[in-house]
Amino acid sequence: MTVLETINSPQDVKKLSVEEMNMLAQDIRDGILKRVNTIGGHLGPDLGIAEATIAMHYVFDSPKDKFVFDVSHQVYPHKMLTGRKHGFLEPSKMHEISGYSNPKESEHDHFVIGHTSTSVSLATGVAKARDLKGENYNVIALIGDGSLSGGEAYEGFNNAAELNSNIIIIVNDNEMSIAPNQGGLYKNLAELRNTNGQAQVNVFKAIGFDYYYVEEGNNIEKLIDVFKKVKDTDRPTVVHIHTLKGKGYEPAVADKETYHWHLPGFLNSNESSVNQEETYNSITKDFLLDKKQKGEPVVAITAATPGVFDFNPEFRLKMGKNFTDVGIAEEHAIAYASGLAKNGAKPVLALMSSFVQRTYDQMSQDLALNNSPATVLIYWGGISGADMTHLCTFDIPLISNIPNIVYLSPVSKEEYLAMLEWSYSQNEHTVFIRVPAIDLVSDGTSDNTDYSQLNKYKLVEKGEKVAVIAAGNFFGLGRQVREEIKKQLGFDATLINPRFLTGVDSEMLENLKKDHSVVITLEDGELDGGFGEKVTRFFGNSSVKVLNFGSKKEFTDRVPLEELYNRYHLTKELIVQDVKEVL
Amino acid sequence: MTVLETINSPQDVKKLSVEEMNMLAQDIRDGILKRVNTIGGHLGPDLGIAEATIAMHYVFDSPKDKFVFDVSHQVYPHKMLTGRKHGFLEPSKMHEISGYSNPKESEHDHFVIGHTSTSVSLATGVAKARDLKGENYNVIALIGDGSLSGGEAYEGFNNAAELNSNIIIIVNDNEMSIAPNQGGLYKNLAELRNTNGQAQVNVFKAIGFDYYYVEEGNNIEKLIDVFKKVKDTDRPTVVHIHTLKGKGYEPAVADKETYHWHLPGFLNSNESSVNQEETYNSITKDFLLDKKQKGEPVVAITAATPGVFDFNPEFRLKMGKNFTDVGIAEEHAIAYASGLAKNGAKPVLALMSSFVQRTYDQMSQDLALNNSPATVLIYWGGISGADMTHLCTFDIPLISNIPNIVYLSPVSKEEYLAMLEWSYSQNEHTVFIRVPAIDLVSDGTSDNTDYSQLNKYKLVEKGEKVAVIAAGNFFGLGRQVREEIKKQLGFDATLINPRFLTGVDSEMLENLKKDHSVVITLEDGELDGGFGEKVTRFFGNSSVKVLNFGSKKEFTDRVPLEELYNRYHLTKELIVQDVKEVL
Repeated sequence: MTVLETINSPQDVKKLSVEEMNMLAQDIRDGILKRVNTIGGHLGPDLGIAEATIAMHYVFDSPKDKFVFDVSHQVYPHKMLTGRKHGFLEPSKMHEISGYSNPKESEHDHFVIGHTSTSVSLATGVAKARDLKGENYNVIALIGDGSLSGGEAYEGFNNAAELNSNIIIIVNDNEMSIAPNQGGLYKNLAELRNTNGQAQVNVFKAIGFDYYYVEEGNNIEKLIDVFKKVKDTDRPTVVHIHTLKGKGYEPAVADKETYHWHLPGFLNSNESSVNQEETYNSITKDFLLDKKQKGEPVVAITAATPGVFDFNPEFRLKMGKNFTDVGIAEEHAIAYASGLAKNGAKPVLALMSSFVQRTYDQMSQDLALNNSPATVLIYWGGISGADMTHLCTFDIPLISNIPNIVYLSPVSKEEYLAMLEWSYSQNEHTVFIRVPAIDLVSDGTSDNTDYSQLNKYKLVEKGEKVAVIAAGNFFGLGRQVREEIKKQLGFDATLINPRFLTGVDSEMLENLKKDHSVVITLEDGELDGGFGEKVTRFFGNSSVKVLNFGSKKEFTDRVPLEELYNRYHLTKELIVQDVKEVL
Repeated sequence: MTVLETINSPQDVKKLSVEEMNMLAQDIRDGILKRVNTIGGHLGPDLGIAEATIAMHYVFDSPKDKFVFDVSHQVYPHKMLTGRKHGFLEPSKMHEISGYSNPKESEHDHFVIGHTSTSVSLATGVAKARDLKGENYNVIALIGDGSLSGGEAYEGFNNAAELNSNIIIIVNDNEMSIAPNQGGLYKNLAELRNTNGQAQVNVFKAIGFDYYYVEEGNNIEKLIDVFKKVKDTDRPTVVHIHTLKGKGYEPAVADKETYHWHLPGFLNSNESSVNQEETYNSITKDFLLDKKQKGEPVVAITAATPGVFDFNPEFRLKMGKNFTDVGIAEEHAIAYASGLAKNGAKPVLALMSSFVQRTYDQMSQDLALNNSPATVLIYWGGISGADMTHLCTFDIPLISNIPNIVYLSPVSKEEYLAMLEWSYSQNEHTVFIRVPAIDLVSDGTSDNTDYSQLNKYKLVEKGEKVAVIAAGNFFGLGRQVREEIKKQLGFDATLINPRFLTGVDSEMLENLKKDHSVVITLEDGELDGGFGEKVTRFFGNSSVKVLNFGSKKEFTDRVPLEELYNRYHLTKELIVQDVKEVL
């Protein structure tokens, strides 16, 4: 029997000897590896935080003492100690337990958290509520693994320092973000590490925290010592612990970036096979490298997720000073891009759909209001079976209602490259491009469209009665719907690729009124505030009926894609059925 | 002839003696006072930065050297020195010059900036573009007056420190934000002031900047000395200057908060008259104080703009520890509210519409995903003649498309108080309320609606043929439209107060299909992604025609409200004209 098998709640942790706790750390690592190898997930950050989590549960009394996990992808060890080890040890039950903090799973989780840099602010609220109610317990935020660079974290530190009561912030310093840490703060962390926490210059003390340093952040005894010291403190306190990301699994230590998150099946596999196929990632990288090689002032930018775009170390080396990783700092990334563009450089910023929502005011004020000619690439936009914290269905409502922004949605390799080249070359508009989140499709002929003619849709197939306006990822579905209409109803519908998500082609839509009674829109994202509603509003004054297809306004949590497509009527059969009802 | 009258460009500043520059500072102050007393505007921050601006133009060579003004409400002195003094001295020309940085006005302005905390990020981009292009000049960001607390500023500092080349950040430390400065960082600024910049603990050095301190930040000679020292540096450099907000106008020094921004006509007026009328501000404060006096864990929260809600010093004193000003830190404010709500306190966060857009991910992830029962009050939402940087027309598209959030839009005092009480008392939903941005309207009877029945619209007047769905500020316009329809067309239209901006009342709308052929929606904000489009989408499958009235997707800049109402057809006559075309 392993030690982990004896642990059913944090109470059981408190009974262990240090030796047993060290064995428990190994059991936890085995569980992490088993889960990630089976269903994929976060590997490195969880491996590194095993000892600290054990020590936290040994010293503090959860759930009375309240833990708030930042970058809750560090929460696997905590889950294993709080009644959820079956989600790691039993393959058939792994999907029952999410990869993030979730109060519905356990009283030891207090928030649903998936994005980063939030824990200090949340914990400050928790602590303030405690004080107002005259209660007495510890509030502990665990932050780190790169999330310190986000502005929300800093705003939180600033205000936590004002609390004048118990709040303990454990800074998990593993020298890494997802990619290596960027930015000035990390220099100070390094200095603190190099001086065993003794450096005079100390950013945490500077803003008013008591400060403790644990060099051996994977040493349970030393962690317990310090946690005991700070327990029940009446002061805002930082415990800076130096941990090893990936500890216990050599490949994850050697290549921290690759093993931050991983697909299943990596154990005992040979990873050296390189994908030679052309993808939207590969053609984007080729585009950027070509500009760099021509000596142009291109700047490829990521906010700590280069892996999403395959901005791998080889690519970064080739780009050199024409590449910037700003760290987890999307607000800065947008404003930085605006500064670059306004001073004649050519920024191309890549962001995941789920993370572009970490910036809005900057898109509106720093970019759009200034018409800064930056290019922003949005990846992974679309409906998926993702965790509720990482949905990518909201970027169209978020971005497309900001004045001045041109949001393009290509449907093929050629269209994407033409849009990218146009965006890069022009100096009038802020341009976002929703990079297709499907396999690369080539339509064989180059695209010579002049995209400076805004909101010009492409009439792909002229038909009658029903017009299908199918955007981006769903253009293929639009074609299928057209074929299904032919099959079931016997006529040729019109098929339109709108290309622009930010406006309507009034001329083309006006023409449709002549010989169409139904228009349908297809978009791979939320309907509320999205693309289709703009089309519907256009037709509001006419007798043309309009049906919008896309996702409902809801947070879905790991719901299989097929189920979502059925729920939202996103199959050709269901769509044609709906069309028949109004035809 | 004043010295200012001799200044037509920064070149003229360079010819002045120190004595003349001091006279120039006085002339600038006269100009600031004249402008603000005539058309209103930012007073205290501009008065405090006169000397620094003169010294900047004396030492640096704008526009070759590039100034980026954060909280560009500190830009008045700069405008006077760069060919725009007529906007301060000549009443008939004051409206030609905006109160914010604007490249269309001058080559000495590089960005349109109105919101805060952006300058360091923008300047980092400008400097990086310079380096990539092999150019050589100084890039100077002026930040301060409270804007250091915003997360974007910190993200910017973090990345500017990585530049390894010339960027000079002037930190204007006037010991104030709009309200007194909050947060840990400001403790360090105080320590630096108290030690003449010598304190060991120095947050700027901690993150990698060279650091200079100027205690007499209103002393032109001392400023010139330091600016000369840092000019052409090849290092990221902070110049921390200690200035006096409001300098030169005693009332603005004595009451920095009141005179941060002021309406015209304050010179020689008696300010002691207190408005005794009931307003949405006064009833909100009464509500909060009542909860506090009952010993409930209410927490009133502002992000550095207490004046907007009349959270004056007297109110703050009464609220005591049940009041939090987080500083300019809207992201933190939202997450903090979530933490409070989840731990049993009752947060009521007040934000201006224009500033709520400084947070989105937190609304979505920290609040909505967690269904945290916080109350967020949105003020000033609506179409206005404001500067393009401070429009309040985007909050409905921004907020109402986030799942789980309930966004309410009351039309009267009684409805507002009922919504506020419901929101405060319940524990199921994250609730936003769009506080009416019009004079308080009482409808004389108390509102006993159960708002936990989501998306139930109120049928105010049952009629036929045309249904008018009029939200919030525009409910009165809706009533006028109904009267105009009666007058011109002779029948009684239906009038509906939707109350919920986040969904449609399917039952009521379905019923309308029976005896209505036209539905119109009225909302005081942007149509794209807004409330009306949801209604239009609902009717897409029917023969009911729907017209949406609201503002276009555009940034408008100080366009008179009447002109906007005409442009958007927001008068009863224009609306009825449009209705007649489709009836």
